[in-house]
Amino acid sequence: MRNPSTGENRKEEKHSPYHGLFFFAKKILHEEKTPFQKIEVIENEFFGKILLIDDLVQTTEKDEFFYHEMLVHPAFVSHPSPQQILIIGGGDGGALREVLHYKIKKVNLVEIDKKVIEISKKFFPNLSSSFEDKRVKIVIANGAEYIKSLDERFDIIIVDSSDPVGPSKALFGEDFYNSLKKIINENGVIVSQTGSPFYHQNIIKKLNKCFKEIYKTVKFYISPVPTYPSGIWSFVYLSENVNPLELKRQPPPNLKYYNKDIHFASFTLPNFIKELLD
Amino acid sequence: MRNPSTGENRKEEKHSPYHGLFFFAKKILHEEKTPFQKIEVIENEFFGKILLIDDLVQTTEKDEFFYHEMLVHPAFVSHPSPQQILIIGGGDGGALREVLHYKIKKVNLVEIDKKVIEISKKFFPNLSSSFEDKRVKIVIANGAEYIKSLDERFDIIIVDSSDPVGPSKALFGEDFYNSLKKIINENGVIVSQTGSPFYHQNIIKKLNKCFKEIYKTVKFYISPVPTYPSGIWSFVYLSENVNPLELKRQPPPNLKYYNKDIHFASFTLPNFIKELLD
Repeated sequence: MRNPSTGENRKEEKHSPYHGLFFFAKKILHEEKTPFQKIEVIENEFFGKILLIDDLVQTTEKDEFFYHEMLVHPAFVSHPSPQQILIIGGGDGGALREVLHYKIKKVNLVEIDKKVIEISKKFFPNLSSSFEDKRVKIVIANGAEYIKSLDERFDIIIVDSSDPVGPSKALFGEDFYNSLKKIINENGVIVSQTGSPFYHQNIIKKLNKCFKEIYKTVKFYISPVPTYPSGIWSFVYLSENVNPLELKRQPPPNLKYYNKDIHFASFTLPNFIKELLD
Repeated sequence: MRNPSTGENRKEEKHSPYHGLFFFAKKILHEEKTPFQKIEVIENEFFGKILLIDDLVQTTEKDEFFYHEMLVHPAFVSHPSPQQILIIGGGDGGALREVLHYKIKKVNLVEIDKKVIEISKKFFPNLSSSFEDKRVKIVIANGAEYIKSLDERFDIIIVDSSDPVGPSKALFGEDFYNSLKKIINENGVIVSQTGSPFYHQNIIKKLNKCFKEIYKTVKFYISPVPTYPSGIWSFVYLSENVNPLELKRQPPPNLKYYNKDIHFASFTLPNFIKELLD
């Protein structure tokens, strides 16, 4: 192991041109340029393994639970009967793992870059434990294109994208959310990560306007994610007929972040976010 | 202005030996070694002016509102009649500014290092706007020692310390919280910042045990603070007879973070923090 104070094997993630996070890599476990993006896996003594895509932290062993629990459980605990599930993105498998806590019938996971799945299987066994479950169908495709060809409908759709640059850009537009409406059940719920409410305010403002034109219920909620920019993250809950604040079932046991009280607390927004969405 | 990509005037704050935050300083506005600590003020293009003490971010113009609002308003909105106030630490003036939103009679601010107040007055006018208010009495003293000599009692005591290393170390011990009990009114509330629930778990565990031996009501609450380690911060609300969840008045208007719903949401704890406190 190298001495971290020498600055060797240092990774940085810029949150603006003027600041960001740095990590010392005890080991660089993987570096690869795929047709879609640059993927790296480093070993950090505090966070454990860290997955970076195009120099942005996607997930770490130590703090992945915040994001994955909060992306999945609010929708599943409030949906009347989640059976048919679609995950767009989420190639690391973390959202899939959380989904499979519930008695669902089928989950399709559509990932654009098969290398993300392969790398997660190799380096993140805790995230990728669910790919072999017989309810899971993996599709390697561009999510925005793939959904246009679908003629089935889903109860819950989870959009687990990376940032709105690179291959995920198409997952942040009006076209995409219009297409989703065609494949979501009447009593369906769509959940998506929508970035940092501190750094990505213009994106959230624009998305909110777009969502409100398409869906009756548009509710943002928030959660800490220590390794994401600003440490506070936002998600959106979209539906025609499901009320996010009427809980239909217990969350699974042994979660690290989410519980029923946190559900309601997460939909409670501070003034600066409320103003953003007015 | 120098090119940030060159890495010139770069400041780093380590959150563990293996990771942390970095900031480019457009300008270093002040650097000083006082008898107590190293104080720096830098100008960052994203966060505005940043106050660092012993290389740790104390506050920034852009995100100071999270911390200062959440340190002050939960106690003031739930206390039956806050009149006599004591702030220990808080030399930047941010907590004082929030306290003076209320119709209080008197507030004593006890800061160990007069240079912090001078520097805040010079560089952070938005934080230090309240030092000249006639209800304010500034005392330059070691807070832990000063309170032993007091024979008055307070309605609300706010412990606005820096981290439990350096001059603030004495503000994290059993002796200190025993001394506070002698100067808090029967219907009084003590509030203190207690570090990151993600990074400082052992400190929080130890403090919780100590608090429970001294006070009847021990309630932790949380808030995001983007420039503090992990972006999620914890506070404790201590009282004999005041219930933090019974609100007695409206918060002041025009706050950026705090509102009545956020009050209750902040006392709602995720599973990993609940387990820490059990």
